[in-house]
Amino acid sequence: MQPSGIVTITTDFGHKGPFVAVMKGVILDRFPAAKIIDLAHDIPAQWPPEAGFWVSRSWRWFPQGTVHLAIVDPGVGTERDILVVDLGGHIFMAPDNGLLGQLIASHEEARVLQLEVDRLDLPAPSATFHGRDIFAPVAAGLAAGQFKADDVAVATTEWTPGWIEEPEATAGRVAGVIVTIDTFGNLISNIDESLLAELAEPVINIAGQQVPMLRTYGLAQPGDYLALVNSFGVVEVARAEGSAADGLGCARGAPLVIRDGYSL
Amino acid sequence: MQPSGIVTITTDFGHKGPFVAVMKGVILDRFPAAKIIDLAHDIPAQWPPEAGFWVSRSWRWFPQGTVHLAIVDPGVGTERDILVVDLGGHIFMAPDNGLLGQLIASHEEARVLQLEVDRLDLPAPSATFHGRDIFAPVAAGLAAGQFKADDVAVATTEWTPGWIEEPEATAGRVAGVIVTIDTFGNLISNIDESLLAELAEPVINIAGQQVPMLRTYGLAQPGDYLALVNSFGVVEVARAEGSAADGLGCARGAPLVIRDGYSL
Amino acid sequence: MQPSGIVTITTDFGHKGPFVAVMKGVILDRFPAAKIIDLAHDIPAQWPPEAGFWVSRSWRWFPQGTVHLAIVDPGVGTERDILVVDLGGHIFMAPDNGLLGQLIASHEEARVLQLEVDRLDLPAPSATFHGRDIFAPVAAGLAAGQFKADDVAVATTEWTPGWIEEPEATAGRVAGVIVTIDTFGNLISNIDESLLAELAEPVINIAGQQVPMLRTYGLAQPGDYLALVNSFGVVEVARAEGSAADGLGCARGAPLVIRDGYSL
Repeated sequence: MQPSGIVTITTDFGHKGPFVAVMKGVILDRFPAAKIIDLAHDIPAQWPPEAGFWVSRSWRWFPQGTVHLAIVDPGVGTERDILVVDLGGHIFMAPDNGLLGQLIASHEEARVLQLEVDRLDLPAPSATFHGRDIFAPVAAGLAAGQFKADDVAVATTEWTPGWIEEPEATAGRVAGVIVTIDTFGNLISNIDESLLAELAEPVINIAGQQVPMLRTYGLAQPGDYLALVNSFGVVEVARAEGSAADGLGCARGAPLVIRDGYSL
Repeated sequence: MQPSGIVTITTDFGHKGPFVAVMKGVILDRFPAAKIIDLAHDIPAQWPPEAGFWVSRSWRWFPQGTVHLAIVDPGVGTERDILVVDLGGHIFMAPDNGLLGQLIASHEEARVLQLEVDRLDLPAPSATFHGRDIFAPVAAGLAAGQFKADDVAVATTEWTPGWIEEPEATAGRVAGVIVTIDTFGNLISNIDESLLAELAEPVINIAGQQVPMLRTYGLAQPGDYLALVNSFGVVEVARAEGSAADGLGCARGAPLVIRDGYSL
Repeated sequence: MQPSGIVTITTDFGHKGPFVAVMKGVILDRFPAAKIIDLAHDIPAQWPPEAGFWVSRSWRWFPQGTVHLAIVDPGVGTERDILVVDLGGHIFMAPDNGLLGQLIASHEEARVLQLEVDRLDLPAPSATFHGRDIFAPVAAGLAAGQFKADDVAVATTEWTPGWIEEPEATAGRVAGVIVTIDTFGNLISNIDESLLAELAEPVINIAGQQVPMLRTYGLAQPGDYLALVNSFGVVEVARAEGSAADGLGCARGAPLVIRDGYSL
């Protein structure tokens, strides 16, 4: 990997307090030219799958050679491992708690390694903030090209799988789940557009409604529900000039089923 | 324009998810030395005027040569145009939905252009996220000096006007509206300080109260309402050690009238 | 001080509007190579102690030569002074309202200066936003090495003390207070780990509960309360897989007492 000097950070730390900031301080201390991008910090507390979902859908928009940190880490300070994944010229680091399970499962070419922190001469880490004490210094070294993934981690064939079942696609039917909700109340699912290929007229069934697929929001009448393949390549349910989440009463985890055509 | 390398981003995306982050990824991929500043992301969903207000009041605090992206874009993917405005050595880009209407109207010297995206060799954009697929790569090119506004846009004499009426100033009276509310509950209006020049003793009438103009917050007694010309040059209604928005029950859109002296 | 080029910013401005952004614009205008890090912007409105707490617990994670701005400033535009503190190779700037009182009190080696803004050739500041008009340009000059603290400020022996009483430690007992609450609902106190040295079995008494000290979150059973020395070196009360703040009904300011062993 030829480093881009960019590090992205995804956490469930929210925007209160200096938690992300001190990670940035540690990175800049070791690699002053680092370019650090906040990917998302509003991951639901201690819910790794949403972090993994956004990382897996966002990384291609960054230059090759980017290091992506994802820290949703209820097991910090216990025996859980830290994974380093080498994929497509990018490096991903996360606790081995399922966060990267879906990304790994959907990319056969991913090389999965386990961090061996003892190979680095780091100060003794705290028991509660490995984002600052382990992830940040490792990311700085990788992003600076001071060492490579294989210098600090060893290949492994075991890791925690993702927490969310993959969508189930059968003839004329695709079933998935709402993974996250954006600021507008759009319901974002884990159904990749590739799964729609066999459906002549995909209709989304969610919360007792049947919702048509359109190309973009502005093609629906205000107040109407619509679905679309969003800009991250997954099926999303929206409401024109409104909030689908509020209108449908749907939250994270809600099921949706896509069928070919409307049902009576 | 001599680029400063700075790009500011204003959106209604909030702070959930990686939407702003992937825009930054695209910018850095094309222009690794870009300095990207988040201007504001808490614009009310699909309400362009507040984005336009803050951009028009903030741009002078950035170096000449800065590119300002403002993306509140309910019409994304439909036939709406994208404006490129060249003003005071800065470049502004926004959907042609009124967002930049007030900025253009208040600066005769502004050059207004319409983006011709086909002149750029961009990948096919998504139908729902032009911030990432069009605004970000164009901003990168402008900020890097790879091309100029006139290379990618053509002068136009038509654009969507701003959504908020300009303040009405008559003898001894100025009427305006609350455009936004800050974290402290201060009510920020669209009345520029220049409109107060004719008033000997300006008194703000809002929500049934008459409020005096002071120089700063700390000159009022705790709990008292006051008004002032704020640091962005517009009239603001505040409450010392409290929230004027909560106390007066005022929201965005509330009218205020400034008269010369107190009324009985 | 050899500048690192880094400026951190801590405020109570929240994440609405362009207030922090225009500070960054001013800094970049004067020092284009500045690296600006948001430390925290969710300080409770006009409550300096929390800003001071986080600055005092975070600064060591940044490189030497960093300038730390902390702006919680209800007295802006009145006669209040601005302090410049030189400590450990870092520079701190804040209104003289107690924000830096605890940091100064706990570091005998801190040099305390008072800003003499007239020594700088700044444009006339607004009465309401010294963060942009004074702090930002001074920080830019300090971070760029254009001048030093002693060039723009004069040593003083008077400053406003911190607002929160220091913890009280007597034989077998330490009493302190909750200073802030993080996104997870963890209750973070002002009790430094050094105060626990004399306690064989420290037990935290808070909100009628007795809570044991553990090493990290994952060592408690889901739903159980625990306390720990957190990654910033202070005692924190948490709830495994839950929110201690919600569960205990505790807010900022809640008292806690640590005793040696459980009481009947």
